[in-house]
Amino acid sequence: MKQSVVKRTSPQRKTRNLEQSRKEILDVAFIEVLHHGFQGVSVDDIVSKTSLTKGAFYHHFPTKLDLGYALVDDVVKPMIIDRWITPLSQYANPLKGIVELMNQRIGGMDPSLMRLGCPLNNLVQEMAPVDHGFNKRLQAALALWITELEVHLKRGKKTGFVRKDVNTRQVAHFVVMAHEGMFGLLKGLNNPGLFEVLFAPFKNYLRTIEA
Amino acid sequence: MKQSVVKRTSPQRKTRNLEQSRKEILDVAFIEVLHHGFQGVSVDDIVSKTSLTKGAFYHHFPTKLDLGYALVDDVVKPMIIDRWITPLSQYANPLKGIVELMNQRIGGMDPSLMRLGCPLNNLVQEMAPVDHGFNKRLQAALALWITELEVHLKRGKKTGFVRKDVNTRQVAHFVVMAHEGMFGLLKGLNNPGLFEVLFAPFKNYLRTIEA
Repeated sequence: MKQSVVKRTSPQRKTRNLEQSRKEILDVAFIEVLHHGFQGVSVDDIVSKTSLTKGAFYHHFPTKLDLGYALVDDVVKPMIIDRWITPLSQYANPLKGIVELMNQRIGGMDPSLMRLGCPLNNLVQEMAPVDHGFNKRLQAALALWITELEVHLKRGKKTGFVRKDVNTRQVAHFVVMAHEGMFGLLKGLNNPGLFEVLFAPFKNYLRTIEA
Repeated sequence: MKQSVVKRTSPQRKTRNLEQSRKEILDVAFIEVLHHGFQGVSVDDIVSKTSLTKGAFYHHFPTKLDLGYALVDDVVKPMIIDRWITPLSQYANPLKGIVELMNQRIGGMDPSLMRLGCPLNNLVQEMAPVDHGFNKRLQAALALWITELEVHLKRGKKTGFVRKDVNTRQVAHFVVMAHEGMFGLLKGLNNPGLFEVLFAPFKNYLRTIEA
């Protein structure tokens, strides 16, 4: 324990590379914002949970809004790709992939995390009308998710898993809508057991577009 | 103009009944919270937009949280009944009613309002994990909506509009999920024109449960 305290204040620590300290701030801020909302968290709250000084914080993020923007661009957007888009490539049938990922990502979630909601949806509902810069970035994150989902749905059409007459743009929008709706409602009802109740009609819908 | 200023400070004004001043605070707070989020608004912001004193505010709502709770119980809950449940009674076929209400309530919405999102969903995503009292009340509001929707879906089953093998509890949950998902995504994408893209798969799903 003592050793790590020493490490924290050692010169090596102070000169550790900027990328690492930026990442530390973003990691802490992500969790704090997930628990309290963006407007419910102060720069002081965040700094106090890092090993950094307030000066170091402001070096990376001149304003709290800059931090918020980086949370969308550098944390949430890569999460969309890592948790949804990259794994979908593993499925020959993208509809099967969407069902399984929904089941893992929401159904299989720890209840203590589920009650905190979807990091993207939380920011959309809280910040989209409050700040234009947030709005633009949140819009881009949602559009990325939808566009990349559609790539896989189109592939499924070509390989004969998705019906030829299906509008893949509509389905891609619907999947993101259902994800945010499901996650948001489970958070609001504070009852993870209801996942199956919401998941069943979603699966029924996807069955209607299967080839 | 001058007359109304005089009225505001006249003794009659001061003695107007408590119910009216409570309603004034709730009306102003509802709009302020819709624009800025609950945590983004202060009691001072709200009081300054009413004709009342801060003392009068605290007479009605000893804390800001008490105001927030009243927004859920006395504004949002009656809105659910007025905008969704009472109108559904007018439709012999509840599925037709749900489609038309979704079209009116979201599709027909002024874009400047749409970008502010659903008052209930906004509070759920922002406040459910932050405060237990909010959590409980938001949960009750969602449960009210779902329970009352199910009453109409059951009626539709009896009168032959909804397939006999349909799980009405699932459908009621799915409709609220789709409402919050649609509204929330349109807000995030900041593009009311996308309503039809989301509405089409929703209508397709409801068609699958029609008798």
